[in-house]
Amino acid sequence: MRKLLNVELERKSVSEFKGATKTPVIIVLDNVRSLNNVGSVFRTADAFLVESVYLCGITGCPPNKEIQKTALGSTESVSWKYFKTTLDAVNDLKENNFNVYAIEQAESAIMLNNFMPGKRQKLAVIFGNEVKGVQQEVIDACTDVIEIPQVGTKHSLNIAVSVGIVMWDLFQKVV
Amino acid sequence: MRKLLNVELERKSVSEFKGATKTPVIIVLDNVRSLNNVGSVFRTADAFLVESVYLCGITGCPPNKEIQKTALGSTESVSWKYFKTTLDAVNDLKENNFNVYAIEQAESAIMLNNFMPGKRQKLAVIFGNEVKGVQQEVIDACTDVIEIPQVGTKHSLNIAVSVGIVMWDLFQKVV
Repeated sequence: MRKLLNVELERKSVSEFKGATKTPVIIVLDNVRSLNNVGSVFRTADAFLVESVYLCGITGCPPNKEIQKTALGSTESVSWKYFKTTLDAVNDLKENNFNVYAIEQAESAIMLNNFMPGKRQKLAVIFGNEVKGVQQEVIDACTDVIEIPQVGTKHSLNIAVSVGIVMWDLFQKVV
Repeated sequence: MRKLLNVELERKSVSEFKGATKTPVIIVLDNVRSLNNVGSVFRTADAFLVESVYLCGITGCPPNKEIQKTALGSTESVSWKYFKTTLDAVNDLKENNFNVYAIEQAESAIMLNNFMPGKRQKLAVIFGNEVKGVQQEVIDACTDVIEIPQVGTKHSLNIAVSVGIVMWDLFQKVV
């Protein structure tokens, strides 16, 4: 099978992206340290046409050379907002009728495969710091916790990989 | 909801991992340049208990300090093999009755959501170089091509993120 050329990929222009009906998901980054991870999250957000990315606390914001290295231009298409604390972001989301889910390993978390949102349901998913994960006080403010089931020795996926897994899963469920 | 402590995660020991029935998937890396990406792939492979990772061509192999930075020890649990060329790996896999799929954007590729392998089906998935993707001659030797549908401006997911997406999808379908 012949690989497609870039011109055959039916990629949206930035203005088509801005004008398109979005996947009704907001990705929230709770104090993510690595700028490479932030850039990679933008690239995934672009691929799945997400509503917005909320960058909180110490999470770096565009424009930034390190973010650009892995974002490869997707900070131009994907909308984003900065919040001083992740709790501020959660409160803002709740006021705007989003259900807010922490992606974590917690008591009675919903396994990702069992999470069944309705089509077009507005939801936000929070991913935590590389070492500390999502803060407990942020989890306490969430609607619920979703867990990516893991069966190995580490139970510690890279945060950009976790965003990819959750977005692919939700993209199929809410669009 | 209370976050779980590390001791509560029911993580396998390395020897439990080695002895466990694996997810019957082999991840093949076709000339992946970034050692950080290789490490991250090992971490994902550990999380989903994959059979093995095949490292081909210029793809770096453990032990390696840069791989270790993102693998975080998962090179101890996950089995791997090096092949001088990716075609050698494909031929080896076919001789061992694996169906081999390139993850690419190609003419009449199967969309990932439409790919329906049977339970316990032995399959291998090939991920390409960060810039060039999977080589055309490798694609030509594959059983078929699987594409991750993308609807943004770039159509270019990070390779470690792509591995996460495909592994989460296949983990639910073949286990």
